[in-house]
Amino acid sequence: MGCFDDGSFNVEVENGVMGSISCEEEGNRASIEDAVKILLLGLGEDINREGIRKTPFRVAKALREGTRGYRQKVKDIVQGALFPEAGLDDRVGHAGGAGGLVIVRDLDLFSYCESCMLPFQVKCHVGYVPSSQRVLGLSKLSRVSEVFAKRLQEPQRLADEVCAALHQGINPAGVAIVLHCSHIHFPDLESVFLDSNHQRWLKILVSSGTGVFENKNADEWADFYSLLKFRGINIEKVHVRGSSYQSWCTQSSLSAKVSSKIGPVNPVMATAVASIIKSLGEDPLRQELVGTPSRFVRWLMNFQTSNLDMKLNGFLHSGIDSLKTNGDVNSSDKKLHSDLNLPFWSQCEHHLLPFHGVVHIGYLISDGYIPIGKSTLQSIVHFYGFKLQVQERLTRQIAETISPLLDGDVIVVVEASHTCMISRGIEKFGSSTATIAVLGRFATEHALRASFLESIPSPTSSEGQ
Amino acid sequence: MGCFDDGSFNVEVENGVMGSISCEEEGNRASIEDAVKILLLGLGEDINREGIRKTPFRVAKALREGTRGYRQKVKDIVQGALFPEAGLDDRVGHAGGAGGLVIVRDLDLFSYCESCMLPFQVKCHVGYVPSSQRVLGLSKLSRVSEVFAKRLQEPQRLADEVCAALHQGINPAGVAIVLHCSHIHFPDLESVFLDSNHQRWLKILVSSGTGVFENKNADEWADFYSLLKFRGINIEKVHVRGSSYQSWCTQSSLSAKVSSKIGPVNPVMATAVASIIKSLGEDPLRQELVGTPSRFVRWLMNFQTSNLDMKLNGFLHSGIDSLKTNGDVNSSDKKLHSDLNLPFWSQCEHHLLPFHGVVHIGYLISDGYIPIGKSTLQSIVHFYGFKLQVQERLTRQIAETISPLLDGDVIVVVEASHTCMISRGIEKFGSSTATIAVLGRFATEHALRASFLESIPSPTSSEGQ
Repeated sequence: MGCFDDGSFNVEVENGVMGSISCEEEGNRASIEDAVKILLLGLGEDINREGIRKTPFRVAKALREGTRGYRQKVKDIVQGALFPEAGLDDRVGHAGGAGGLVIVRDLDLFSYCESCMLPFQVKCHVGYVPSSQRVLGLSKLSRVSEVFAKRLQEPQRLADEVCAALHQGINPAGVAIVLHCSHIHFPDLESVFLDSNHQRWLKILVSSGTGVFENKNADEWADFYSLLKFRGINIEKVHVRGSSYQSWCTQSSLSAKVSSKIGPVNPVMATAVASIIKSLGEDPLRQELVGTPSRFVRWLMNFQTSNLDMKLNGFLHSGIDSLKTNGDVNSSDKKLHSDLNLPFWSQCEHHLLPFHGVVHIGYLISDGYIPIGKSTLQSIVHFYGFKLQVQERLTRQIAETISPLLDGDVIVVVEASHTCMISRGIEKFGSSTATIAVLGRFATEHALRASFLESIPSPTSSEGQ
Repeated sequence: MGCFDDGSFNVEVENGVMGSISCEEEGNRASIEDAVKILLLGLGEDINREGIRKTPFRVAKALREGTRGYRQKVKDIVQGALFPEAGLDDRVGHAGGAGGLVIVRDLDLFSYCESCMLPFQVKCHVGYVPSSQRVLGLSKLSRVSEVFAKRLQEPQRLADEVCAALHQGINPAGVAIVLHCSHIHFPDLESVFLDSNHQRWLKILVSSGTGVFENKNADEWADFYSLLKFRGINIEKVHVRGSSYQSWCTQSSLSAKVSSKIGPVNPVMATAVASIIKSLGEDPLRQELVGTPSRFVRWLMNFQTSNLDMKLNGFLHSGIDSLKTNGDVNSSDKKLHSDLNLPFWSQCEHHLLPFHGVVHIGYLISDGYIPIGKSTLQSIVHFYGFKLQVQERLTRQIAETISPLLDGDVIVVVEASHTCMISRGIEKFGSSTATIAVLGRFATEHALRASFLESIPSPTSSEGQ
């Protein structure tokens, strides 16, 4: 696509409404698309395959949108949203536009980790103490926070930047920020089989304050926390600035350990990631970003096609052939057996973003004999997870793989959270997805299917944050 | 503002990025702004007052954005998002692109009630059974739902329209929709003093199905519900199409009862609301919308300025003067007394949208003598709630009103949900706001303030949905 004379043309933006986009914007997006093609080729994918043909376009659009904060100005947001509001005489007390603390709690944000480029989720709590008989429109506290969240970030810097920007914009007596950040903790292909208690999220609490909140021991902080504590925030856990951050982004600590197994990072792919970072409006040479391209590529290589096929072939030959022996039992004597909550990790091929959750498998057994152990099923789940996927296909592939070993009567349910549902335009934070594959008797006998579905536990204990 | 030759010009859109807008769009917005000015004048407001000077602009922007579904096409969203995906041979089972049920759960949406024009919240659950070896990108199920939610709606029609549109767009074996809708239940000024157990939300569950889901008793519905039930959905409560809807929007049923007290609806204001409906892209003569302008105006008149001042003056003269008697007790002997969780209802003057929540009041008493009963405090809270407000001012006004009656030592905390935080651009569904006013010893003694703040219970039991 070329650019028109007026420097803009219409495109379909995320919500289906037409919007306008500048020549420079278009140039940056095209450059991200080219870089994503290089990454897909590096993963061994056919970039003309139907499912991923438009992935470069989608990734570029989502990344530009997810980092739109680089192109936003706090001044534009705060301007015109400061309202005159009476306060009290200082000798009487504090309220309204002079000294009454204002807090907006539980703002859902997401950001991109500057260390590994995966999105992370943020519960954001913002407070400020008005002065000069002025208050800020409440929604602007959220909008200003978004400006800095929609960049490549690190929790403490995010808190500091929001805090400083609000202080400058409102000129209040003080600003306080508490962020509750959750970073998805993806295992890598090498370690996932060994680590059965893999922790799904790494969490950190950080805070930042200006003015009356500059001193961590100020009474104003105590007031602020009093109004947060009973919303599930435990102040004991707030990260102290300057202390070690090792546990936050595991990609950085893991990569050294596993790099010897995965081999050196493909330099062409790393250069492509660096060019993406530049196109988003960042300096790839900024100290914290220098290692990011290698970390992202190393993580991405968990999902290369050849990894998977090679390993699964070896696995099927050595481990499963011998299991296919009890096909002669009368099928009506069989009982339902369920293996629930097998975790999986995968990568959405439409957006190159993680999706993850649990797999529930049901099949029929005779006389209590279990032909496939749970750990074998877990391995099959991991094998199909670690590739560019869609959830519907993952569900079918697991079912098809185990079906011949189980006389063809199999049900597979996959429950997942998709990062693309939160980190793109629609930002549906609490949503989750379920897909089903039903084979043999599970396809035809509703009562059998129902008794399996009823056995699936509530997802609150096994899924998401 | 005039229109440029190319039929579009740049405006600041909600996220602070520049966008483009057509002449027609601008004309509609200007016409909504004019109508909002008429409504503000009808409420007895000075439309040049600083806080509401830009309210017509903000309301017009928010309403256009909140009803953008009228200007969106499902075809544009679904097109290019249908992916080829292998299924199974029908004789073997159902999975992937042929027969495997796909569900996206817990999508947070909001819509505008066509009966009263207040926003209502929706938990949306969408399912479909793919056919023809094709699946739809998961986020599109959310986007298509949004198209119909962002209109003036009624729960059953919303479910039916999303269902029909998805069926037409995907051409699957069937589509199923379950919506869990919550309509804010505002009391009116006349009844709020009598109704101490006022129900804050009215909820309804509706469903709609096409294809294999057309029959309510189909096995496919049982599968769908199995995967919803353990997410807090009780299928017993699903509304049966055609049965009475009386309890959904109380504005329609209430208005007849209270209209005699409030008096006839100002016809100029009603005409202004009808013109807003037209500018949003709707037909104000559509059967369900004919009574909407009157209902909206009747509801809005709860917040007229004169209502409040007249009543509060009367109240203060008759009820409170006699209370101001115990000012001579030594203040250090006093003990903290808390009145918590006093509900309030108000209207944001920046956006003409409801905000509501609870007020917590603390003060000092001697010898167990309580100078102001809880019901008196509740009345004061209601008096300041029922007007065009901002939360910071509400907090200050309550504190200032009761302070002289309590020797000047008062703390007031207001916790609220703001509809403008969910029904405008930022759509922060779980957020809440807290404001504080501290007078006298509560301003200077941190330990006293802290002991009150710690006594405020967790909001989960008292607030929001």
